[in-house]
Amino acid sequence: MLGSTGSIGTQTLEIASEQPDKFKAVALSAGRNINLLTEQVKTHKPEVVAIEDESLIEDLKDNINNLDLDDVPLVLGGKQGINAVAAWDKADTVVTGIVGCAGLIPTMSAINAGKNIALANKETLIAAGPIVIPALKKNNSRLLPADSEHSAIFQCLQGLPNYENADFSTGDIPKGLKAIHLTASGGAFRDWAVEDLKHVTVEDATSHPNWDMGKKITVDSATLMNKGLEVIEAHYLFGTSYEDIEIVIHPQSIIHSMIEMEDSSVLAQLGWPDMKLPILYAMSWPERFKTNWKRLNLSEIGKLTFKEPDEFKYPCMGLAYAAGKSSGTMPAVLNAANEMAVEQFLKEKISFQQIPTFISKACESHMENLNLSPELEDILEVDNWARLFIEQEIKKGKKYVSIR
Amino acid sequence: MLGSTGSIGTQTLEIASEQPDKFKAVALSAGRNINLLTEQVKTHKPEVVAIEDESLIEDLKDNINNLDLDDVPLVLGGKQGINAVAAWDKADTVVTGIVGCAGLIPTMSAINAGKNIALANKETLIAAGPIVIPALKKNNSRLLPADSEHSAIFQCLQGLPNYENADFSTGDIPKGLKAIHLTASGGAFRDWAVEDLKHVTVEDATSHPNWDMGKKITVDSATLMNKGLEVIEAHYLFGTSYEDIEIVIHPQSIIHSMIEMEDSSVLAQLGWPDMKLPILYAMSWPERFKTNWKRLNLSEIGKLTFKEPDEFKYPCMGLAYAAGKSSGTMPAVLNAANEMAVEQFLKEKISFQQIPTFISKACESHMENLNLSPELEDILEVDNWARLFIEQEIKKGKKYVSIR
Repeated sequence: MLGSTGSIGTQTLEIASEQPDKFKAVALSAGRNINLLTEQVKTHKPEVVAIEDESLIEDLKDNINNLDLDDVPLVLGGKQGINAVAAWDKADTVVTGIVGCAGLIPTMSAINAGKNIALANKETLIAAGPIVIPALKKNNSRLLPADSEHSAIFQCLQGLPNYENADFSTGDIPKGLKAIHLTASGGAFRDWAVEDLKHVTVEDATSHPNWDMGKKITVDSATLMNKGLEVIEAHYLFGTSYEDIEIVIHPQSIIHSMIEMEDSSVLAQLGWPDMKLPILYAMSWPERFKTNWKRLNLSEIGKLTFKEPDEFKYPCMGLAYAAGKSSGTMPAVLNAANEMAVEQFLKEKISFQQIPTFISKACESHMENLNLSPELEDILEVDNWARLFIEQEIKKGKKYVSIR
Repeated sequence: MLGSTGSIGTQTLEIASEQPDKFKAVALSAGRNINLLTEQVKTHKPEVVAIEDESLIEDLKDNINNLDLDDVPLVLGGKQGINAVAAWDKADTVVTGIVGCAGLIPTMSAINAGKNIALANKETLIAAGPIVIPALKKNNSRLLPADSEHSAIFQCLQGLPNYENADFSTGDIPKGLKAIHLTASGGAFRDWAVEDLKHVTVEDATSHPNWDMGKKITVDSATLMNKGLEVIEAHYLFGTSYEDIEIVIHPQSIIHSMIEMEDSSVLAQLGWPDMKLPILYAMSWPERFKTNWKRLNLSEIGKLTFKEPDEFKYPCMGLAYAAGKSSGTMPAVLNAANEMAVEQFLKEKISFQQIPTFISKACESHMENLNLSPELEDILEVDNWARLFIEQEIKKGKKYVSIR
């Protein structure tokens, strides 16, 4: 489990606790939260734990020693420690729950170690799709989407003929598939008028109507960048062209996404908005494990509604499609610029509507250096460049006009 | 094609015309409509045609001779003719579109000839499930549901592990399946108050809000007997117990049905309310053939609504569950009694609310003769008995009180 103290991590470990005959957490990593990590060690008794912030390694060791366990886990620190957890011999599946581009290197470690990857860290694919997909094939590793939308698509695709044989990396798409329809809640501002978005506060942007997620992702949901990034992820995961990936606003978040077949039939996956289901499926695939979770009841819900997303309200959506189509290093720039812009918004350095403005500036500026066949180092370099670019642009104190 | 001039038949032949590189209609049968049958012979140039009403065979021959075809088809008549069409050597798949129990014998002929059956005639399975399922296995024949709801379930089930190996006839169910949710439009009276059902006319009952179907089926949709019969069909098709088959009212008929997995995930198949899609899938399975049919657009539809069915408003639903659970010959009695009661309603001999009253009477009366391991002859016998019973009860002119 990469990122065991985050939102994905704690939910994954809940599943492991609920299904002790099916799952055993053997290796855990976290960023800085040693108290929760210690609790998790007590409950799950892993073989190894790693804390990214090396300055905390001694405190973590003390905490764990105080637990008085029969088998004391190996305690590691720093990026090397995280990578060791990612490639831990005893693990069959690595759940990647590290938010942002920080998850890329450890996920590559897990792929290179031939693990199945339950991918909740979408940035890995978005930034490094051209590197990840060939690496999966080379290492006979498999990517199982653990986020709600891609899990829905993945679940629906299971029944298509020759799905198993579709070679994503060469652009083959599952036979019979026409289009992918990603559903979007519409985020915190789905009922706001465009002109009111001027006055958005951090508090407004970090309260999500349906999903219980981290702050960064909740802002991404409000800008619809979340969905834009998912469009790019879907492109890499399923080989679908951008023209055939559509977004539909579905405020109830009950239909988690849909596939449309060549014959006009549509398959959808439905459920309560709860990340545990896609995480479980990524770990149980191709089986279905019995849970005692609340059964979906459409009569209780009463109605499901749908509308087209407003491109003027959600400029990040268009930026994501454009970056995806530019391909190569551009999605990495989009992703890094977005992470930095959201961070600066959360620190109240820029306004909500300046998020797309800064991202757009970074993407434009990257056009002349666009690399269509990047190596991992190139990805890391543009990621770094984009962050610095945004930071510097903000520091310059230039008065950007919002692109809205 | 069994029943080529009916609603299913004409839609099937439309598909054959749209996809000439995929399908060729080699054998057609109809009941009495020789004019349309002649048109179909002209268009599709089958090798054989049969007309059930033997008195029309000479007229049909004359019609066909007047077409001046290079290859004149063999023209047959009567039940033997229909059975010959059902077992026609060159056919790979037999589409059964004969309404009611009349389709049973020709469908059995097709099964015994080892054909794949695209089943739009639900009565075959409902009346004769205990005979049909073992016959399918014995003849290495396969039943592909061609009605909207069961096709939806069938499409959703494709992705379940080991679905291919599930042995329906021994009560195995696809691994991981928890429940089936059949959607029902609610029929012509879904917005009527229960007390107004007293005044229902034949015209009221034969106008369906969503689907373009035959009169008998439209009345079944208004009583929800259609859905009750589909519950029994789903039980035989997928081995699911009656406790795990649920009905939900969904007026827009966009979600055609759903499956719920053990892990709480729900898969649904969606599409416009058009019988051509399930017919096509039954013929193209496991492939998906490209069509130019109108693409589903949920934003255009705007909302999908759901509610629980009202058992007091739809007593036929309860009768169907009860007959299904009684098993053996009881579903055949339910089906025959319903066919006769609807026929008498359409002739204005009984009221709309008397339909369930007479069916209930027939089922009750059959209880003492219930046969749990019927042969085909037993099915045909109780079918006949139930029809006579209803007819006689109506003739007796007894003043039944509606069970509502």
